[in-house]
Amino acid sequence: MALLVVGSIAFDSIETPGGSVDNALGGSASYFSVAASHFTKPRLVGVVGEDFPDEHRALFAGCHIDTAGLVTRTGQTFKWKGRYHTDMNTRDTLEVHLNVFGEFKPELPAHYSDSQFIFLANSSPTTQLSTLAQIKNPQLVLADTMDLWINIEKGPLLMLLPKIDGLLINDSEAQLLTGENNLVKAGKAVLALGPKFVILKKGEHGAMLFSGPEVFVFPAFPTENVIDPTGAGDSFAGGILGYLASHNHDPIASLQKAIAYGTVVASLTVEGFGLDRLRHVTRLEIENRVKQYRNMLQIG
Amino acid sequence: MALLVVGSIAFDSIETPGGSVDNALGGSASYFSVAASHFTKPRLVGVVGEDFPDEHRALFAGCHIDTAGLVTRTGQTFKWKGRYHTDMNTRDTLEVHLNVFGEFKPELPAHYSDSQFIFLANSSPTTQLSTLAQIKNPQLVLADTMDLWINIEKGPLLMLLPKIDGLLINDSEAQLLTGENNLVKAGKAVLALGPKFVILKKGEHGAMLFSGPEVFVFPAFPTENVIDPTGAGDSFAGGILGYLASHNHDPIASLQKAIAYGTVVASLTVEGFGLDRLRHVTRLEIENRVKQYRNMLQIG
Repeated sequence: MALLVVGSIAFDSIETPGGSVDNALGGSASYFSVAASHFTKPRLVGVVGEDFPDEHRALFAGCHIDTAGLVTRTGQTFKWKGRYHTDMNTRDTLEVHLNVFGEFKPELPAHYSDSQFIFLANSSPTTQLSTLAQIKNPQLVLADTMDLWINIEKGPLLMLLPKIDGLLINDSEAQLLTGENNLVKAGKAVLALGPKFVILKKGEHGAMLFSGPEVFVFPAFPTENVIDPTGAGDSFAGGILGYLASHNHDPIASLQKAIAYGTVVASLTVEGFGLDRLRHVTRLEIENRVKQYRNMLQIG
Repeated sequence: MALLVVGSIAFDSIETPGGSVDNALGGSASYFSVAASHFTKPRLVGVVGEDFPDEHRALFAGCHIDTAGLVTRTGQTFKWKGRYHTDMNTRDTLEVHLNVFGEFKPELPAHYSDSQFIFLANSSPTTQLSTLAQIKNPQLVLADTMDLWINIEKGPLLMLLPKIDGLLINDSEAQLLTGENNLVKAGKAVLALGPKFVILKKGEHGAMLFSGPEVFVFPAFPTENVIDPTGAGDSFAGGILGYLASHNHDPIASLQKAIAYGTVVASLTVEGFGLDRLRHVTRLEIENRVKQYRNMLQIG
Protein backbone atom coordinates (compact mmCIF):
# COMPACT_ATOMS: atom_id res chain seq x y z
CA MET A 1 0.00 0.00 0.00
CA ALA A 2 1.31 3.42 -0.92
CA LEU A 3 3.28 5.30 1.75
CA LEU A 4 3.65 9.07 1.60
CA VAL A 5 5.98 11.36 3.55
CA VAL A 6 5.77 15.13 3.61
CA GLY A 7 8.69 16.80 5.31
CA SER A 8 11.99 18.61 5.08
CA ILE A 9 15.03 17.99 2.94
CA ALA A 10 18.16 19.64 4.24
CA PHE A 11 21.89 20.01 4.10
CA ASP A 12 23.12 19.04 7.56
CA SER A 13 26.46 20.01 9.02
CA ILE A 14 27.07 17.89 12.08
CA GLU A 15 29.77 17.83 14.72
CA THR A 16 30.08 14.97 17.19
CA PRO A 17 32.83 14.15 19.70
CA GLY A 18 34.08 11.62 17.12
CA GLY A 19 34.05 13.62 13.89
CA SER A 20 32.11 15.93 11.63
CA VAL A 21 30.41 16.15 8.26
CA ASP A 22 29.44 19.17 6.13
CA ASN A 23 26.33 19.56 4.02
CA ALA A 24 25.28 15.93 4.23
CA LEU A 25 21.84 15.05 2.88
CA GLY A 26 19.42 15.26 5.80
CA GLY A 27 15.97 16.45 6.80
CA SER A 28 13.00 14.49 8.10
CA ALA A 29 11.71 13.39 4.68
CA SER A 30 15.15 12.13 3.64
CA TYR A 31 15.65 10.00 6.73
CA PHE A 32 12.07 8.76 6.73
CA SER A 33 12.00 7.80 3.07
CA VAL A 34 15.41 6.09 3.01
CA ALA A 35 14.37 4.11 6.12
CA ALA A 36 11.00 3.19 4.61
CA SER A 37 12.61 2.27 1.27
CA HIS A 38 13.89 -0.94 2.87
CA PHE A 39 10.25 -2.09 3.04
CA THR A 40 8.31 -0.31 0.28
CA LYS A 41 8.60 2.38 -2.42
CA PRO A 42 7.81 5.60 -0.53
CA ARG A 43 6.43 8.75 -2.11
CA LEU A 44 8.22 11.90 -1.09
CA VAL A 45 6.93 15.46 -0.93
CA GLY A 46 9.46 18.17 -0.18
CA VAL A 47 11.27 21.21 -1.51
CA VAL A 48 14.89 21.91 -2.38
CA GLY A 49 16.76 24.89 -3.84
CA GLU A 50 18.71 25.18 -7.05
CA ASP A 51 21.82 24.12 -5.14
CA PHE A 52 20.49 20.59 -4.60
CA PRO A 53 23.03 18.32 -6.29
CA ASP A 54 22.42 15.45 -8.67
CA GLU A 55 24.19 13.03 -6.32
CA HIS A 56 21.41 13.48 -3.72
CA ARG A 57 18.73 12.94 -6.38
CA ALA A 58 20.66 9.84 -7.40
CA LEU A 59 20.60 8.62 -3.80
CA PHE A 60 16.79 8.89 -3.69
CA ALA A 61 16.54 7.19 -7.09
CA GLY A 62 18.90 4.44 -5.95
CA CYS A 63 16.58 3.79 -3.00
CA HIS A 64 13.57 3.59 -5.35
CA ILE A 65 11.94 6.58 -3.71
CA ASP A 66 9.20 8.22 -5.79
CA THR A 67 10.33 11.86 -6.05
CA ALA A 68 7.44 13.15 -8.20
CA GLY A 69 6.59 15.34 -5.20
CA LEU A 70 10.09 16.79 -4.84
CA VAL A 71 9.96 20.36 -6.09
CA THR A 72 12.87 22.68 -6.83
CA ARG A 73 12.45 26.38 -6.10
CA THR A 74 14.57 29.44 -6.77
CA GLY A 75 16.90 29.88 -3.80
CA GLN A 76 18.83 27.63 -1.46
CA THR A 77 18.04 24.35 0.23
CA PHE A 78 17.26 24.27 3.99
CA LYS A 79 20.51 24.19 5.97
CA TRP A 80 21.04 23.01 9.55
CA LYS A 81 24.19 22.93 11.63
CA GLY A 82 24.42 21.23 15.01
CA ARG A 83 26.90 19.96 17.56
CA TYR A 84 26.38 16.94 19.81
CA HIS A 85 27.60 16.93 23.39
CA THR A 86 29.86 14.22 24.77
CA ASP A 87 26.91 12.11 25.93
CA MET A 88 25.47 12.10 22.34
CA ASN A 89 21.98 12.64 23.79
CA THR A 90 21.92 16.42 23.74
CA ARG A 91 22.91 18.82 21.01
CA ASP A 92 23.14 22.51 20.27
CA THR A 93 21.70 23.90 17.08
CA LEU A 94 24.38 26.25 15.76
CA GLU A 95 22.68 27.45 12.57
CA VAL A 96 19.28 27.14 10.90
CA HIS A 97 18.58 28.59 7.45
CA LEU A 98 15.10 27.57 6.37
CA ASN A 99 15.64 29.03 2.88
CA VAL A 100 13.11 27.57 0.38
CA PHE A 101 11.59 25.36 3.11
CA GLY A 102 10.40 28.48 4.99
CA GLU A 103 7.73 29.30 2.41
CA PHE A 104 6.87 25.74 1.47
CA LYS A 105 3.17 24.89 1.14
CA PRO A 106 3.09 21.23 0.10
CA GLU A 107 1.03 20.42 -2.98
CA LEU A 108 0.63 16.75 -3.67
CA PRO A 109 1.03 15.41 -7.21
CA ALA A 110 -2.38 14.11 -8.37
CA HIS A 111 -1.34 10.44 -8.22
CA TYR A 112 -0.25 10.82 -4.57
CA SER A 113 -3.77 11.59 -3.33
CA ASP A 114 -4.62 7.89 -3.03
CA SER A 115 -1.78 7.26 -0.57
CA GLN A 116 -2.91 5.12 2.35
CA PHE A 117 -0.08 5.44 4.87
CA ILE A 118 0.93 9.01 5.60
CA PHE A 119 3.76 10.50 7.61
CA LEU A 120 3.34 14.19 8.36
CA ALA A 121 6.89 14.93 9.46
CA ASN A 122 7.57 17.77 11.86
CA SER A 123 6.25 21.05 10.49
CA SER A 124 3.65 23.64 11.41
CA PRO A 125 0.34 21.98 12.36
CA THR A 126 -1.38 24.39 9.94
CA THR A 127 0.72 22.97 7.11
CA GLN A 128 0.11 19.43 8.36
CA LEU A 129 -3.67 20.08 8.31
CA SER A 130 -3.60 21.49 4.76
CA THR A 131 -1.49 18.53 3.61
CA LEU A 132 -3.85 16.03 5.19
CA ALA A 133 -6.81 17.68 3.41
CA GLN A 134 -5.23 16.66 0.09
CA ILE A 135 -5.39 12.93 0.85
CA LYS A 136 -8.58 11.19 -0.30
CA ASN A 137 -8.91 8.23 1.99
CA PRO A 138 -5.91 7.61 4.21
CA GLN A 139 -5.75 4.36 6.14
CA LEU A 140 -3.24 5.47 8.76
CA VAL A 141 -1.83 8.94 9.42
CA LEU A 142 1.16 9.43 11.73
CA ALA A 143 2.30 12.95 12.59
CA ASP A 144 5.38 14.30 14.32
CA THR A 145 5.61 17.64 16.11
CA MET A 146 8.00 19.64 18.27
CA ASP A 147 8.15 22.08 21.21
CA LEU A 148 8.05 25.10 18.87
CA TRP A 149 4.54 24.25 17.62
CA ILE A 150 3.30 23.41 21.11
CA ASN A 151 4.45 26.89 22.14
CA ILE A 152 3.32 28.96 19.15
CA GLU A 153 0.62 26.93 17.33
CA LYS A 154 -1.10 24.96 20.05
CA GLY A 155 -4.55 25.73 18.60
CA PRO A 156 -3.91 24.19 15.17
CA LEU A 157 -2.06 21.29 16.85
CA LEU A 158 -5.13 20.53 18.99
CA MET A 159 -7.24 20.63 15.80
CA LEU A 160 -4.87 18.20 14.09
CA LEU A 161 -4.73 15.59 16.85
CA PRO A 162 -8.29 14.16 16.50
CA LYS A 163 -7.78 13.93 12.71
CA ILE A 164 -4.72 11.69 12.82
CA ASP A 165 -4.25 8.08 13.90
CA GLY A 166 -0.94 8.40 15.67
CA LEU A 167 1.23 11.10 17.14
CA LEU A 168 4.98 10.74 17.50
CA ILE A 169 6.22 12.96 20.31
CA ASN A 170 9.27 12.98 22.53
CA ASP A 171 9.20 12.84 26.31
CA SER A 172 9.85 16.52 27.05
CA GLU A 173 7.35 17.61 24.37
CA ALA A 174 4.65 15.37 25.84
CA GLN A 175 5.35 16.89 29.25
CA LEU A 176 5.18 20.40 27.76
CA LEU A 177 1.93 19.66 25.92
CA THR A 178 0.14 18.09 28.88
CA GLY A 179 1.77 19.56 31.99
CA GLU A 180 2.27 16.02 33.31
CA ASN A 181 5.77 15.06 34.52
CA ASN A 182 5.13 11.34 34.83
CA LEU A 183 5.56 9.85 31.33
CA VAL A 184 2.71 7.35 31.67
CA LYS A 185 0.34 10.15 32.69
CA ALA A 186 1.73 12.42 29.96
CA GLY A 187 1.27 9.75 27.27
CA LYS A 188 -2.31 9.04 28.38
CA ALA A 189 -3.04 12.78 28.47
CA VAL A 190 -1.79 13.17 24.87
CA LEU A 191 -3.99 10.22 23.87
CA ALA A 192 -6.97 12.01 25.42
CA LEU A 193 -6.39 14.87 22.97
CA GLY A 194 -7.65 12.77 20.09
CA PRO A 195 -5.17 10.47 18.32
CA LYS A 196 -5.84 6.70 18.31
CA PHE A 197 -2.31 6.03 19.53
CA VAL A 198 0.71 7.90 20.81
CA ILE A 199 4.32 6.87 20.41
CA LEU A 200 6.39 8.60 23.06
CA LYS A 201 10.08 8.74 22.11
CA LYS A 202 12.76 8.66 24.81
CA GLY A 203 15.92 8.83 22.67
CA GLU A 204 18.52 6.29 23.76
CA HIS A 205 16.00 4.94 26.31
CA GLY A 206 13.56 3.73 23.68
CA ALA A 207 9.87 4.43 23.30
CA MET A 208 6.45 3.87 24.82
CA LEU A 209 3.23 3.11 22.94
CA PHE A 210 -0.14 4.26 24.26
CA SER A 211 -2.97 2.61 22.37
CA GLY A 212 -6.44 2.58 23.90
CA PRO A 213 -6.10 1.53 27.54
CA GLU A 214 -2.81 -0.25 26.91
CA VAL A 215 0.77 0.87 27.48
CA PHE A 216 3.74 -0.88 25.89
CA VAL A 217 7.42 -0.21 26.45
CA PHE A 218 10.26 -0.62 23.95
CA PRO A 219 13.87 -0.28 24.98
CA ALA A 220 16.20 1.09 22.33
CA PHE A 221 18.30 -1.54 20.56
CA PRO A 222 21.63 -1.27 22.41
CA THR A 223 24.45 -0.30 20.11
CA GLU A 224 27.94 0.70 21.12
CA ASN A 225 28.66 2.37 17.77
CA VAL A 226 26.75 5.62 18.14
CA ILE A 227 28.38 7.80 15.47
CA ASP A 228 25.64 10.38 14.79
CA PRO A 229 22.16 10.43 16.36
CA THR A 230 20.76 12.75 13.68
CA GLY A 231 17.71 11.29 11.96
CA ALA A 232 17.08 8.58 14.55
CA GLY A 233 13.50 9.76 15.17
CA ASP A 234 12.55 10.10 11.51
CA SER A 235 14.10 6.79 10.52
CA PHE A 236 12.29 5.21 13.51
CA ALA A 237 9.05 6.51 11.95
CA GLY A 238 10.19 5.28 8.52
CA GLY A 239 10.77 1.79 9.87
CA ILE A 240 7.36 1.75 11.58
CA LEU A 241 5.31 2.94 8.61
CA GLY A 242 7.50 1.12 6.06
CA TYR A 243 6.78 -2.13 7.90
CA LEU A 244 3.04 -1.41 8.19
CA ALA A 245 2.65 -0.29 4.56
CA SER A 246 4.33 -3.46 3.29
CA HIS A 247 2.04 -5.86 5.18
CA ASN A 248 -1.63 -6.54 4.82
CA HIS A 249 -2.30 -6.81 8.53
CA ASP A 250 -4.49 -4.61 10.67
CA PRO A 251 -2.04 -1.75 11.26
CA ILE A 252 -3.19 -0.91 14.81
CA ALA A 253 -2.87 -4.57 15.82
CA SER A 254 0.60 -4.68 14.24
CA LEU A 255 1.97 -1.56 15.92
CA GLN A 256 4.17 -3.40 18.40
CA LYS A 257 5.90 -5.36 15.68
CA ALA A 258 6.21 -2.23 13.55
CA ILE A 259 7.78 -0.34 16.47
CA ALA A 260 10.31 -3.16 16.85
CA TYR A 261 11.27 -2.62 13.18
CA GLY A 262 11.43 1.15 13.74
CA THR A 263 13.64 0.65 16.79
CA VAL A 264 16.05 -1.52 14.84
CA VAL A 265 16.16 0.83 11.84
CA ALA A 266 16.88 3.79 14.15
CA SER A 267 19.72 1.86 15.80
CA LEU A 268 21.27 1.28 12.36
CA THR A 269 20.87 4.94 11.38
CA VAL A 270 22.92 6.20 14.33
CA GLU A 271 25.80 3.87 13.45
CA GLY A 272 26.96 6.22 10.67
CA PHE A 273 27.10 9.92 9.82
CA GLY A 274 23.96 11.20 8.11
CA LEU A 275 22.50 8.54 5.81
CA ASP A 276 25.83 6.70 5.36
CA ARG A 277 24.84 3.58 7.25
CA LEU A 278 21.08 3.64 6.71
CA ARG A 279 21.25 3.79 2.93
CA HIS A 280 23.55 0.75 2.69
CA VAL A 281 21.75 -1.44 5.21
CA THR A 282 20.30 -4.64 3.78
CA ARG A 283 16.89 -6.05 4.57
CA LEU A 284 18.68 -9.12 5.93
CA GLU A 285 20.60 -6.98 8.43
CA ILE A 286 17.32 -5.47 9.58
CA GLU A 287 15.67 -8.89 9.93
CA ASN A 288 18.65 -10.29 11.84
CA ARG A 289 18.68 -7.37 14.24
CA VAL A 290 14.91 -7.68 14.78
CA LYS A 291 15.55 -11.33 15.69
CA GLN A 292 18.27 -10.24 18.14
CA TYR A 293 15.95 -7.62 19.61
CA ARG A 294 13.19 -10.18 19.99
CA ASN A 295 15.54 -12.59 21.81
CA MET A 296 16.74 -9.77 24.02
CA LEU A 297 13.18 -9.19 25.23
CA GLN A 298 12.50 -12.83 26.09
CA ILE A 299 12.41 -13.00 29.84
CA GLY A 300 11.99 -16.78 30.02
CA MET B 1 18.45 -21.66 49.41
CA ALA B 2 19.47 -19.15 52.05
CA LEU B 3 19.67 -15.51 51.01
CA LEU B 4 21.75 -13.02 52.98
CA VAL B 5 21.81 -9.23 52.81
CA VAL B 6 24.37 -7.03 54.49
CA GLY B 7 23.54 -3.34 54.35
CA SER B 8 22.16 -0.25 56.03
CA ILE B 9 19.09 0.27 58.15
CA ALA B 10 18.03 3.89 58.39
CA PHE B 11 15.42 6.40 59.38
CA ASP B 12 14.51 8.21 56.15
CA SER B 13 12.89 11.62 55.99
CA ILE B 14 11.64 12.13 52.46
CA GLU B 15 10.05 15.07 50.66
CA THR B 16 8.47 14.67 47.24
CA PRO B 17 6.33 17.07 45.20
CA GLY B 18 3.32 15.10 46.48
CA GLY B 19 4.01 14.78 50.18
CA SER B 20 6.53 13.93 52.86
CA VAL B 21 7.33 11.41 55.54
CA ASP B 22 9.57 11.62 58.63
CA ASN B 23 11.79 8.91 60.07
CA ALA B 24 10.32 6.11 57.97
CA LEU B 25 12.10 2.76 58.09
CA GLY B 26 14.58 2.74 55.20
CA GLY B 27 18.11 1.77 54.24
CA SER B 28 19.34 -0.72 51.67
CA ALA B 29 19.00 -3.81 53.87
CA SER B 30 15.41 -2.91 54.82
CA TYR B 31 14.24 -2.44 51.22
CA PHE B 32 16.16 -5.47 50.00
CA SER B 33 14.94 -7.82 52.70
CA VAL B 34 11.28 -6.76 52.57
CA ALA B 35 11.36 -7.17 48.75
CA ALA B 36 13.05 -10.57 48.99
CA SER B 37 10.66 -11.68 51.73
CA HIS B 38 7.95 -12.10 49.09
CA PHE B 39 10.00 -15.03 47.73
CA THR B 40 12.06 -16.46 50.58
CA LYS B 41 13.05 -15.89 54.24
CA PRO B 42 16.04 -13.54 53.97
CA ARG B 43 18.78 -13.24 56.56
CA LEU B 44 19.62 -9.66 57.50
CA VAL B 45 22.87 -8.22 58.79
CA GLY B 46 22.83 -4.59 59.89
CA VAL B 47 23.15 -2.22 62.77
CA VAL B 48 20.71 0.10 64.53
CA GLY B 49 20.93 2.41 67.54
CA GLU B 50 19.09 2.29 70.82
CA ASP B 51 16.42 4.52 69.28
CA PHE B 52 15.26 1.77 66.89
CA PRO B 53 11.62 1.18 67.77
CA ASP B 54 9.83 -2.09 68.34
CA GLU B 55 7.39 -1.34 65.54
CA HIS B 56 10.23 -1.60 62.96
CA ARG B 57 11.42 -4.88 64.50
CA ALA B 58 7.83 -6.05 64.29
CA LEU B 59 7.75 -5.12 60.60
CA PHE B 60 10.80 -7.32 59.92
CA ALA B 61 9.30 -10.13 61.99
CA GLY B 62 5.97 -9.80 60.16
CA CYS B 63 7.84 -10.26 56.87
CA HIS B 64 9.55 -13.40 58.25
CA ILE B 65 12.98 -11.81 57.93
CA ASP B 66 15.69 -13.52 59.99
CA THR B 67 17.11 -10.71 62.15
CA ALA B 68 19.69 -12.75 64.05
CA GLY B 69 22.27 -10.52 62.33
CA LEU B 70 20.63 -7.24 63.35
CA VAL B 71 22.77 -5.72 66.09
CA THR B 72 21.91 -2.82 68.37
CA ARG B 73 24.71 -0.48 69.40
CA THR B 74 24.93 2.43 71.80
CA GLY B 75 24.00 5.56 69.90
CA GLN B 76 21.56 6.52 67.19
CA THR B 77 20.37 4.80 64.03
CA PHE B 78 21.58 6.03 60.60
CA LYS B 79 19.46 8.98 59.46
CA TRP B 80 18.95 10.28 55.93
CA LYS B 81 16.91 13.21 54.68
CA GLY B 82 16.28 13.89 51.01
CA ARG B 83 14.09 15.90 48.69
CA TYR B 84 12.97 14.78 45.22
CA HIS B 85 12.70 17.22 42.35
CA THR B 86 9.53 17.64 40.31
CA ASP B 87 10.63 15.01 37.76
CA MET B 88 11.05 12.43 40.58
CA ASN B 89 14.28 11.24 38.94
CA THR B 90 16.70 13.49 40.74
CA ARG B 91 16.99 14.30 44.41
CA ASP B 92 19.02 16.36 46.82
CA THR B 93 20.41 14.80 49.97
CA LEU B 94 19.64 17.31 52.71
CA GLU B 95 21.10 15.49 55.72
CA VAL B 96 23.15 12.36 56.38
CA HIS B 97 23.97 11.18 59.89
CA LEU B 98 25.75 7.83 59.71
CA ASN B 99 25.62 7.42 63.51
CA VAL B 100 26.13 3.74 64.49
CA PHE B 101 26.39 2.71 60.81
CA GLY B 102 29.59 4.76 60.43
CA GLU B 103 31.65 2.37 62.56
CA PHE B 104 29.86 -0.82 61.54
CA LYS B 105 32.05 -3.83 60.73
CA PRO B 106 29.60 -6.62 59.89
CA GLU B 107 30.09 -9.85 61.77
CA LEU B 108 27.94 -12.70 60.57
CA PRO B 109 26.16 -14.96 63.08
CA ALA B 110 27.68 -18.44 62.82
CA HIS B 111 24.61 -19.98 61.18
CA TYR B 112 24.68 -17.32 58.39
CA SER B 113 28.04 -18.50 57.04
CA ASP B 114 26.40 -21.18 54.88
CA SER B 115 24.29 -18.59 52.99
CA GLN B 116 24.33 -19.25 49.26
CA PHE B 117 22.85 -16.08 47.78
CA ILE B 118 24.49 -12.90 49.01
CA PHE B 119 23.68 -9.24 48.50
CA LEU B 120 26.46 -6.89 49.52
CA ALA B 121 24.47 -3.66 49.57
CA ASN B 122 26.19 -0.36 48.96
CA SER B 123 29.02 0.18 51.43
CA SER B 124 32.77 0.56 51.39
CA PRO B 125 34.39 -2.11 49.17
CA THR B 126 36.76 -2.85 52.06
CA THR B 127 33.77 -3.74 54.23
CA GLN B 128 32.22 -5.71 51.37
CA LEU B 129 35.47 -7.73 51.02
CA SER B 130 35.65 -8.48 54.74
CA THR B 131 31.97 -9.53 54.75
CA LEU B 132 32.47 -11.81 51.77
CA ALA B 133 35.41 -13.50 53.52
CA GLN B 134 32.97 -14.70 56.20
CA ILE B 135 30.87 -16.74 53.76
CA LYS B 136 31.95 -20.36 53.33
CA ASN B 137 30.74 -21.29 49.90
CA PRO B 138 28.48 -18.73 48.26
CA GLN B 139 26.68 -19.72 45.09
CA LEU B 140 25.95 -16.22 43.84
CA VAL B 141 27.21 -12.88 45.17
CA LEU B 142 25.70 -9.61 43.95
CA ALA B 143 27.22 -6.30 45.08
CA ASP B 144 26.08 -2.71 44.79
CA THR B 145 28.35 0.32 44.86
CA MET B 146 28.23 4.10 44.40
CA ASP B 147 30.19 7.04 43.03
CA LEU B 148 31.76 7.76 46.46
CA TRP B 149 33.63 4.41 46.48
CA ILE B 150 34.68 4.76 42.85
CA ASN B 151 36.20 8.10 43.81
CA ILE B 152 37.82 7.27 47.15
CA GLU B 153 38.20 3.45 47.26
CA LYS B 154 38.76 2.45 43.68
CA GLY B 155 41.58 0.05 44.64
CA PRO B 156 39.49 -2.11 47.00
CA LEU B 157 36.57 -1.93 44.52
CA LEU B 158 38.80 -3.32 41.74
CA MET B 159 39.87 -6.09 44.15
CA LEU B 160 36.23 -6.91 44.92
CA LEU B 161 34.97 -7.13 41.32
CA PRO B 162 36.68 -10.41 40.32
CA LYS B 163 35.46 -12.02 43.57
CA ILE B 164 31.75 -11.41 42.99
CA ASP B 165 29.31 -12.82 40.46
CA GLY B 166 27.35 -9.70 39.65
CA LEU B 167 27.70 -5.97 40.08
CA LEU B 168 24.72 -3.66 40.30
CA ILE B 169 25.70 -0.18 39.17
CA ASN B 170 23.82 2.82 37.83
CA ASP B 171 24.48 4.46 34.48
CA SER B 172 26.46 7.47 35.70
CA GLU B 173 28.53 5.31 38.06
CA ALA B 174 29.41 2.91 35.23
CA GLN B 175 30.49 5.90 33.14
CA LEU B 176 32.56 7.23 36.05
CA LEU B 177 34.22 3.87 36.70
CA THR B 178 35.10 3.16 33.06
CA GLY B 179 35.36 6.56 31.37
CA GLU B 180 32.98 5.32 28.66
CA ASN B 181 29.96 7.51 27.83
CA ASN B 182 28.15 4.97 25.69
CA LEU B 183 26.26 2.69 28.08
CA VAL B 184 26.87 -0.49 26.07
CA LYS B 185 30.60 0.21 26.06
CA ALA B 186 30.49 1.19 29.75
CA GLY B 187 28.66 -2.01 30.71
CA LYS B 188 31.10 -4.18 28.79
CA ALA B 189 34.04 -2.31 30.32
CA VAL B 190 32.69 -2.96 33.84
CA LEU B 191 32.31 -6.64 32.91
CA ALA B 192 35.96 -6.70 31.85
CA LEU B 193 36.89 -5.72 35.42
CA GLY B 194 35.97 -9.17 36.65
CA PRO B 195 32.33 -9.85 37.58
CA LYS B 196 30.45 -12.58 35.69
CA PHE B 197 27.59 -10.20 34.97
CA VAL B 198 26.73 -6.54 35.32
CA ILE B 199 23.28 -5.07 35.86
CA LEU B 200 23.31 -1.45 34.78
CA LYS B 201 20.45 0.53 36.35
CA LYS B 202 18.88 3.44 34.47
CA GLY B 203 16.22 4.53 36.99
CA GLU B 204 12.87 5.14 35.33
CA HIS B 205 14.36 3.91 32.04
CA GLY B 206 14.95 0.38 33.29
CA ALA B 207 18.10 -1.70 33.24
CA MET B 208 20.59 -3.51 31.03
CA LEU B 209 22.19 -6.89 31.70
CA PHE B 210 25.68 -7.69 30.47
CA SER B 211 26.42 -11.39 30.80
CA GLY B 212 29.30 -12.89 28.85
CA PRO B 213 29.05 -11.58 25.27
CA GLU B 214 25.33 -10.90 25.59
CA VAL B 215 23.45 -7.69 26.27
CA PHE B 216 19.81 -7.63 27.38
CA VAL B 217 17.58 -4.63 27.90
CA PHE B 218 14.72 -4.25 30.39
CA PRO B 219 12.41 -1.27 30.33
CA ALA B 220 11.03 -0.20 33.69
CA PHE B 221 7.47 -1.32 34.37
CA PRO B 222 5.48 1.82 33.51
CA THR B 223 3.57 3.13 36.48
CA GLU B 224 1.76 6.43 36.75
CA ASN B 225 1.66 6.31 40.54
CA VAL B 226 5.21 7.28 41.42
CA ILE B 227 4.89 8.38 45.03
CA ASP B 228 8.45 7.93 46.33
CA PRO B 229 11.39 6.48 44.33
CA THR B 230 13.44 5.76 47.50
CA GLY B 231 14.48 2.12 47.72
CA ALA B 232 13.71 1.28 44.08
CA GLY B 233 17.27 0.04 43.44
CA ASP B 234 17.52 -2.08 46.59
CA SER B 235 14.07 -3.61 46.17
CA PHE B 236 14.99 -4.31 42.52
CA ALA B 237 17.96 -6.28 43.86
CA GLY B 238 15.69 -7.94 46.45
CA GLY B 239 13.30 -9.09 43.73
CA ILE B 240 16.15 -10.47 41.63
CA LEU B 241 17.89 -12.42 44.38
CA GLY B 242 14.64 -13.35 46.10
CA TYR B 243 13.46 -14.96 42.87
CA LEU B 244 16.79 -16.73 42.26
CA ALA B 245 17.11 -18.00 45.84
CA SER B 246 13.62 -19.48 45.75
CA HIS B 247 14.17 -21.52 42.56
CA ASN B 248 16.43 -24.45 41.89
CA HIS B 249 17.44 -23.28 38.43
CA ASP B 250 20.88 -22.29 37.21
CA PRO B 251 20.94 -18.70 38.50
CA ILE B 252 22.99 -17.26 35.63
CA ALA B 253 20.61 -18.81 33.08
CA SER B 254 17.64 -17.44 35.04
CA LEU B 255 18.90 -13.86 35.32
CA GLN B 256 16.52 -12.43 32.73
CA LYS B 257 13.48 -13.82 34.48
CA ALA B 258 14.86 -12.71 37.85
CA ILE B 259 15.40 -9.18 36.52
CA ALA B 260 11.78 -9.13 35.33
CA TYR B 261 10.73 -9.91 38.91
CA GLY B 262 13.10 -7.25 40.25
CA THR B 263 11.68 -4.72 37.79
CA VAL B 264 8.14 -5.42 38.90
CA VAL B 265 9.00 -5.34 42.61
CA ALA B 266 10.76 -1.97 42.15
CA SER B 267 7.69 -0.59 40.35
CA LEU B 268 5.53 -1.59 43.31
CA THR B 269 7.97 -0.05 45.81
CA VAL B 270 7.76 3.42 44.25
CA GLU B 271 3.96 3.39 44.45
CA GLY B 272 4.07 4.26 48.16
CA PHE B 273 6.16 6.20 50.66
CA GLY B 274 9.01 4.21 52.14
CA LEU B 275 8.00 0.56 52.62
CA ASP B 276 4.26 1.33 52.76
CA ARG B 277 3.37 -0.33 49.47
CA LEU B 278 6.13 -2.94 49.28
CA ARG B 279 5.41 -4.51 52.65
CA HIS B 280 1.72 -5.04 51.84
CA VAL B 281 2.13 -6.35 48.30
CA THR B 282 0.95 -9.91 47.76
CA ARG B 283 2.77 -12.53 45.77
CA LEU B 284 -0.28 -12.64 43.49
CA GLU B 285 0.09 -8.92 42.69
CA ILE B 286 3.72 -9.54 41.81
CA GLU B 287 2.87 -12.51 39.59
CA ASN B 288 0.08 -10.58 37.83
CA ARG B 289 2.34 -7.65 37.15
CA VAL B 290 5.09 -9.96 35.83
CA LYS B 291 2.47 -11.37 33.43
CA GLN B 292 1.54 -7.84 32.35
CA TYR B 293 5.23 -7.00 31.88
CA ARG B 294 5.75 -10.13 29.82
CA ASN B 295 2.80 -9.26 27.56
CA MET B 296 4.09 -5.74 27.20
CA LEU B 297 7.34 -7.06 25.78
CA GLN B 298 5.70 -9.32 23.22
CA ILE B 299 6.36 -7.72 19.85
CA GLY B 300 4.34 -10.20 17.84
